[in-house]
Amino acid sequence: MTAQRIHNFNAGPAALPLPVLEKIQASFLNFNDSGMSITEISHRSSHFDAVINDAVERARQLLKLDDTWHVLFIQGGASLQFAMIPMNFLGQGQTADYINTGTWSTKAIKEAQIQKKTIQVTASSEDKNFSYIPEAIPCTPGARYVHITTNNTIKGTRFAQFPETGGIPLVADMSSDIFSRPLPMEKFGLIYAGAQKNLGPSGTCMVSIKKDFLETAEDDLPSMLKYSTYAAKNSMYNTPPCFGIYTIGLVLKWIQEQFGTLEKMAAFNEQKAAILYDVIDGSGFYRGTARKDSRSLMNVTFRLPTEELEKKFVADALKKGMGGLKGHRSVGGCRASIYNAATMESVMALKEFMTSFEKENG
Amino acid sequence: MTAQRIHNFNAGPAALPLPVLEKIQASFLNFNDSGMSITEISHRSSHFDAVINDAVERARQLLKLDDTWHVLFIQGGASLQFAMIPMNFLGQGQTADYINTGTWSTKAIKEAQIQKKTIQVTASSEDKNFSYIPEAIPCTPGARYVHITTNNTIKGTRFAQFPETGGIPLVADMSSDIFSRPLPMEKFGLIYAGAQKNLGPSGTCMVSIKKDFLETAEDDLPSMLKYSTYAAKNSMYNTPPCFGIYTIGLVLKWIQEQFGTLEKMAAFNEQKAAILYDVIDGSGFYRGTARKDSRSLMNVTFRLPTEELEKKFVADALKKGMGGLKGHRSVGGCRASIYNAATMESVMALKEFMTSFEKENG
Repeated sequence: MTAQRIHNFNAGPAALPLPVLEKIQASFLNFNDSGMSITEISHRSSHFDAVINDAVERARQLLKLDDTWHVLFIQGGASLQFAMIPMNFLGQGQTADYINTGTWSTKAIKEAQIQKKTIQVTASSEDKNFSYIPEAIPCTPGARYVHITTNNTIKGTRFAQFPETGGIPLVADMSSDIFSRPLPMEKFGLIYAGAQKNLGPSGTCMVSIKKDFLETAEDDLPSMLKYSTYAAKNSMYNTPPCFGIYTIGLVLKWIQEQFGTLEKMAAFNEQKAAILYDVIDGSGFYRGTARKDSRSLMNVTFRLPTEELEKKFVADALKKGMGGLKGHRSVGGCRASIYNAATMESVMALKEFMTSFEKENG
Repeated sequence: MTAQRIHNFNAGPAALPLPVLEKIQASFLNFNDSGMSITEISHRSSHFDAVINDAVERARQLLKLDDTWHVLFIQGGASLQFAMIPMNFLGQGQTADYINTGTWSTKAIKEAQIQKKTIQVTASSEDKNFSYIPEAIPCTPGARYVHITTNNTIKGTRFAQFPETGGIPLVADMSSDIFSRPLPMEKFGLIYAGAQKNLGPSGTCMVSIKKDFLETAEDDLPSMLKYSTYAAKNSMYNTPPCFGIYTIGLVLKWIQEQFGTLEKMAAFNEQKAAILYDVIDGSGFYRGTARKDSRSLMNVTFRLPTEELEKKFVADALKKGMGGLKGHRSVGGCRASIYNAATMESVMALKEFMTSFEKENG
């Protein structure tokens, strides 16, 4: 940790790799010898072409996407994707399945329903406050897609394996675990992720779509709400969120340079999460909120014996330079978000703090 | 000009005030003693509340907006506004007028038509390649709004005065001249501006809506496509484009500290534009493309005797540290974009270059 920097356990916007921030800072007045800030260069320039093409290429390399896939950058966050997906893929008489594993899945379902699209919620873990990932997931014959949220930031769960759908493409909100592990891309038709957890600053959503899936999309839609508009123009039908795309490219470069592959990134994430879950499981003081087989590697959610102790935990941690440990306002408790950029140093600092806090207050 | 920085005449993304860039750079690893970058702080934190409230308040002060107005930040650029405006304000049986003054107006019209909304193009300057602003502008009785583009970046024209509409609210795309001059806000129902010309980095669109106008909007729309969603949550229904909003706040602060009011900002802009138009008008070499009474103060568009000379002009200027002078790819020629952040030093450098280039090549 650099002097003055805290250990940042925010759920999103979240910690970014320090080398990436330092690189942005160093070149902020003069990007790539252009004599301009990255925030001042034209998106129609060769400077920016190189930026966006680099980000796309690195995403392709890490996810092993061949040219049957588009890699797009769209504004509006995952929340706009909740609306665009049914808008683009559910025409008259078509239907899709949704699996409800928490707050964000519920919102995705709502945005399809607002548009009066025909969808089925084929599985849900609402019966136990979304503390687990459902196993038995039936599919509706002829469904256009099955929508899932791969990692549930608020409830601290994730799909460790992805559902068998009998060939129906998965459409997945990966906002909180994109690039944290390798993916069986052959199962997916579309994946999307708001940048602000694992990728970059808020304001950019990365979307990858299989080309043959895109070809089945509705066409009679406003330009900015059609995936085909972005696919046809390398995400530059209008001015894209340049600073966000630039940062995402740097973050992907950092993953490649530091870890090489998503297999190695995943191993590091498993190691970090295990350290915190071991503290929780070895204690009678902390209590994990997610079922063990459904635990997220990105968002470690836990409770303390009382709400007073939870408040004290969050406040004392902040005094020791650890921020963002309060649980989501909708569920309470504590949460340590440890995305790709969370360092081992941060995780070890939290482990030590948890141990000493338990000793002093347990 | 700081060493290594160029005089940036880009049309957008465009020059930002150097003191703003320096401030962002200096605090990029530790925003406001948070121990985090502005790109890493939670939008639900008191840190970010202060950022967004400051930006909103400064926009209100400069535009003299009382609490009958919302000030919102929305992603997707002006292009998404082209779709959202008819979506929100044209219900069954309702109609609106559009004035067509160039590329962006044409796109706004197209996005209403894609949605099969009933609109009329009541005035257009297409007959003369959009080189002027139409004077006689009839209004359709009962129209919900009259849409205009206040400044036409590509054609180099602007509405010097705003149309009389007999009380029908103007809805205005101000992407390229927002905060460049005072506005008679009583004429408007909604104004919007993509940030990347006069406000900040690309990826954020500022939208101000009169509350009573918003109350007439359609409700049965996807959450992210309804203005009321943003109005109800201070633009934070989902994670907003935090870095963009932060930068916009700094730019507005810079206007207030450097100029005080939009009247003074406008005077500076008039002074800068006059310097370049005087070179053009005093020359038999350069030829302005916009009718004099319709000339933009933000985008000075001009031709040289031949396309070869235009290419040489742009290339020679770049060698002398002046960038972004190529006209829009759809019209050719040359264009100097001199938004609020363009310095007098940059304008004087361009004036001198234009004069010497004419001497050498005229």
